[in-house]
Amino acid sequence: MSKLVIVGTVAFDAIETPFGKTDKILGGAATFIGLSASHFNVDAAAISIVGGDFPQEYLDILSSKKIDISGIEIVKDGKTFFWSGKYHNDMNTRDTLVTELNVLADFNPVVPNNYLDADVVMLGNLHPIVQLGVLDQMTIKPKLVVLDTMNFWMDCALDDLLNVIKRIDVITINDEEARQLTGEYSLVVAARKIHEMGPKYVVIKKGEHGALLFHDDHMFYAPALPLEEVFDPTGAGDTFAGGFAGYLTKTEDYSFENMKNAVIYGSTLASFCVEKFGTERMINLEKNEVLKRMQQFKQLTQFNIELS
Amino acid sequence: MSKLVIVGTVAFDAIETPFGKTDKILGGAATFIGLSASHFNVDAAAISIVGGDFPQEYLDILSSKKIDISGIEIVKDGKTFFWSGKYHNDMNTRDTLVTELNVLADFNPVVPNNYLDADVVMLGNLHPIVQLGVLDQMTIKPKLVVLDTMNFWMDCALDDLLNVIKRIDVITINDEEARQLTGEYSLVVAARKIHEMGPKYVVIKKGEHGALLFHDDHMFYAPALPLEEVFDPTGAGDTFAGGFAGYLTKTEDYSFENMKNAVIYGSTLASFCVEKFGTERMINLEKNEVLKRMQQFKQLTQFNIELS
Repeated sequence: MSKLVIVGTVAFDAIETPFGKTDKILGGAATFIGLSASHFNVDAAAISIVGGDFPQEYLDILSSKKIDISGIEIVKDGKTFFWSGKYHNDMNTRDTLVTELNVLADFNPVVPNNYLDADVVMLGNLHPIVQLGVLDQMTIKPKLVVLDTMNFWMDCALDDLLNVIKRIDVITINDEEARQLTGEYSLVVAARKIHEMGPKYVVIKKGEHGALLFHDDHMFYAPALPLEEVFDPTGAGDTFAGGFAGYLTKTEDYSFENMKNAVIYGSTLASFCVEKFGTERMINLEKNEVLKRMQQFKQLTQFNIELS
Repeated sequence: MSKLVIVGTVAFDAIETPFGKTDKILGGAATFIGLSASHFNVDAAAISIVGGDFPQEYLDILSSKKIDISGIEIVKDGKTFFWSGKYHNDMNTRDTLVTELNVLADFNPVVPNNYLDADVVMLGNLHPIVQLGVLDQMTIKPKLVVLDTMNFWMDCALDDLLNVIKRIDVITINDEEARQLTGEYSLVVAARKIHEMGPKYVVIKKGEHGALLFHDDHMFYAPALPLEEVFDPTGAGDTFAGGFAGYLTKTEDYSFENMKNAVIYGSTLASFCVEKFGTERMINLEKNEVLKRMQQFKQLTQFNIELS
């Protein structure tokens, strides 16, 4: 069974949308990535840090999905990372209300011994120095390293970010971030400039408008499934990344052609994530529901035309 | 050979984009629709009106593409409809600088006798009463009626617009207009409400984010081809509609499955339109270029995954 290492936050989120609001609930990049990747029966480990205030039942949820949590450090007298945000009416923009780093401020990730030879490393959104720290620990060069990041690190740790971008195979980034990172409005030109920074594969996430995969002169486009209602977009990007990395880990085929399928799986899983608050939908998601929605994706995008 | 009737403006445009500006050049919905539909070797006629100031060479361009122009009325002592607009840096929004209706103010469309039995009618953006006037002239019910419209008519002639919407098969409309027409943010819900107004097929155009085709519970999504540079978006929506209607006219297959292909053809042709100012790219577009880009569309969207 192929091994997948996931690094990222395991956290409390408090979310407000036009449909309601939550108290502190389970959140964090590694959580969403892990729940999504768990659909592929890979040997996945989450590397993260939480405080003594973090409920055992949340950790049990990850374990129940067969995610190894021995790499999640528990700081007994510390507090768990907390993020709170409020979405605007269009659900495409949000305000961050609270960011409490807490134990994350001194996070020193340690990859468990039996994952130092993992096939795939998924670097969830975190300080690029932490992401680099994980890569440096791997005793065998991973077959694939996927990085997710965000504009925050471009603003305050650009040099570190560029250092980690040099060493990865795939970057997942949203459209505005791709534009910020390159100074280019056209996503085609932005992707080319990001290629030149290191990654052979560039995934640009466009939210409700889907995702683009770039590799040299090749492009692939996966739409987001048009939904009647987006209830809570939190974690959709991480869920996409988890599905993408999980599928590639399972299939052990890191070609562009297979990455197309990985993008479709990522989009499919993300389309569930937004249906309920936080991780709720992902925790209860069944395999047959995923298969059914993959069929919908095929119908949504596939056509049969004779060109002559 | 199947017949296609195209109604819309034949006009002067003056365009300003971040890349430059033009004097008065050839424009108008019927012009772009006609140039696009001409790629399908159908028997197409344009119904419109121009003034005595309209150059014969512009009419000759349409004739050279085998578009019947006997339905384009020339008002010798009148002036041609003139639109001028300026695009913002993102190319997704624009300001209208000038709208001179001129001869369009008294346009009374007359369908030439040999097109009264046309198979397909493409109602380009115009006052809904003019669009209705064309439908009323048809002596045999067309096999397919496609309507393009815009928010302007929702603001100032909503009742007339709803009357024409009742009588058509396909509406093409952009995302913001679909939201305005229905008061629904979700495009899935908006499409359902538009279905209830009459059209069995709803095409929602999302500009650089592609187009969605809805029919009952079925959805199909065609991306826009990601481009290095969008030079001038003027006419892209009309070019899309012309490719859509032209392909369906040629194939005489008005099923949802075939409409998927029509959407892909429309998107392909629109991707050329934006490469140069006004009609320039469409006038010189060769068949082999279109075929090559259709292949690119296939590569962009098609994947091969086994679901089990």
